[in-house]
Amino acid sequence: MHEIESPEKLVYEDVPEPEPGPGEVVVRLRAAALNRRDVFVTRGMYPGAKPDALPIILGADGSGEISARGDGVDGPAEGAEVVINPALFWGDDPRIPGKEYRILGLPDDGTFAQFIKVPADHVFPKPSHLSQEEAAAIPLAALTAYRALFTRGRLQEGETVVVPGIGGGVATFLVQMARAIGARVFVTSGSDEKIEQAKELGAEGGINYNTEKWSRELRSMTGGVDLSADTIGGEVFDALLSIAKPGGRVVSIGATAGPVEKLILPKIFIRPGHLDVLGTAMGSPQDFEGMLRFYEEHELYPVIKETFPLEEATAAMNYMEEGSGIGKIVLDIPA
Amino acid sequence: MHEIESPEKLVYEDVPEPEPGPGEVVVRLRAAALNRRDVFVTRGMYPGAKPDALPIILGADGSGEISARGDGVDGPAEGAEVVINPALFWGDDPRIPGKEYRILGLPDDGTFAQFIKVPADHVFPKPSHLSQEEAAAIPLAALTAYRALFTRGRLQEGETVVVPGIGGGVATFLVQMARAIGARVFVTSGSDEKIEQAKELGAEGGINYNTEKWSRELRSMTGGVDLSADTIGGEVFDALLSIAKPGGRVVSIGATAGPVEKLILPKIFIRPGHLDVLGTAMGSPQDFEGMLRFYEEHELYPVIKETFPLEEATAAMNYMEEGSGIGKIVLDIPA
Repeated sequence: MHEIESPEKLVYEDVPEPEPGPGEVVVRLRAAALNRRDVFVTRGMYPGAKPDALPIILGADGSGEISARGDGVDGPAEGAEVVINPALFWGDDPRIPGKEYRILGLPDDGTFAQFIKVPADHVFPKPSHLSQEEAAAIPLAALTAYRALFTRGRLQEGETVVVPGIGGGVATFLVQMARAIGARVFVTSGSDEKIEQAKELGAEGGINYNTEKWSRELRSMTGGVDLSADTIGGEVFDALLSIAKPGGRVVSIGATAGPVEKLILPKIFIRPGHLDVLGTAMGSPQDFEGMLRFYEEHELYPVIKETFPLEEATAAMNYMEEGSGIGKIVLDIPA
Repeated sequence: MHEIESPEKLVYEDVPEPEPGPGEVVVRLRAAALNRRDVFVTRGMYPGAKPDALPIILGADGSGEISARGDGVDGPAEGAEVVINPALFWGDDPRIPGKEYRILGLPDDGTFAQFIKVPADHVFPKPSHLSQEEAAAIPLAALTAYRALFTRGRLQEGETVVVPGIGGGVATFLVQMARAIGARVFVTSGSDEKIEQAKELGAEGGINYNTEKWSRELRSMTGGVDLSADTIGGEVFDALLSIAKPGGRVVSIGATAGPVEKLILPKIFIRPGHLDVLGTAMGSPQDFEGMLRFYEEHELYPVIKETFPLEEATAAMNYMEEGSGIGKIVLDIPA
């Protein structure tokens, strides 16, 4: 990308193959996947998406094979199939990222390319049951969901979980992973079609936002909620506090609906009360490893909505912005 | 109290001495202490403060001696000096109160009396270094503060703590107990006098709300906050999110300033990010025991602002509503 305006400004062109520095590997990418972040960058709607960051190769999610190794790398062998951890340079504290932390794909060149250069400790063996396309679909969203549910949300088998706004990339992984450990999962959406798709993924029920008093309906459907994992914010966040069980947890991951207009604090301390509101974003290397292990142990497969060739990244982004259905949008990368 | 309107409606009169039922003890009270709750009840500004609750003896905080024991009580001997846990019937789960839970002093007759009947497992040995007046000053506020700082807030030695609104009963205990384990404590107030009193109690610094951009000042004074313990809410709560360190905790205990008008959720998940907002109210029996042990181990003494005879409970409440200075208001109870 040489210009910030919209996905139409993406350019497909040859760039020199990167050379690995000490401690780095080059990955020949086989597949990549889109996140909202990538579209926001094309529109200049992301911190750091400014002309001085150009030109930039977008993309946080990708998988492929090791094609070259820099000095001092004794990690994955050449040809090894790997998936890339897009939470770059998180640092030493698993609780919080350090000063060098950033997400792959801005300011560093990302995965919408044939080759990428990353630190050797940022590649992990591809889960063996997944194709390259499937492996490319999971990193950013599954990492975020794993940390939200388990590291931060302390989710236990048999607990009741609400995932509002099913359809977003992270939300789909939240449903799938919460189901995998035997939680009861409920979703919300403005689309009955997406609620049906979530049920196919294992959700027990769902409520359309257009239902009158949807949060009361959701409360009576769930019987009270142990854990909500919220990427929406706004009045949805407020409703999630109201329908929590006493001592329940609300993990705050995103706020696509903006601020909470009026936060009634006694919901947090008195009624339902004793709530935990827990913020999270991306995850540590330990979270990334935990997520991959979880994906293997439970033999999970990501939901892939559509696949485009890399050359058609603009069309893929337009398709993402249409926002129909659930699941990831993958880019196939030519050999 | 036979009538709800204001502290002026309190009546000092003789009532029959209570008889202990099975599993109960009668305590001859030697001292009691005021909480805001008691004043709110006189004004009908508390849930359940309705005519059908009358007549009622107010008061949650009290200490005294065991004067009678019901069947099956093998706990404290007659004459033993005890302090009463005002969190009645919390239940079996230390994390959250059960259905029977309520605070002493409404709907149950409270401590502004010569005698009180309570379940035997709700009395605990008075910390030996405290007088009866001092012991009576601690239960409700110190229980709340202990749970907020330690059970919920996981406070560690050397961490930086902010206690806004110094002057309230709980806030004073928060400062004292955080200091006792070697935290750095900072306070806020609308009164320079109260800030000075907090410094005498061990606070390292404080900011007057009337200072322009007080929250920025507080951020640079503290260098970032590990734990805030908030009884104020409103814009103060919002400021506490802004000045937290990444991964910091904000314990929400009260909201005397009302709702948060616009909660910017990215403060919780992105910047500072990875925050915990933790609601709490009163505490479990385990918290009460932990608090008494903490008070003994650290040889703490509560700050007592003023003492009135029980007969002058109305004057004591009026004094509380004036709101000057920090510390508890105690009622001496005649033998």
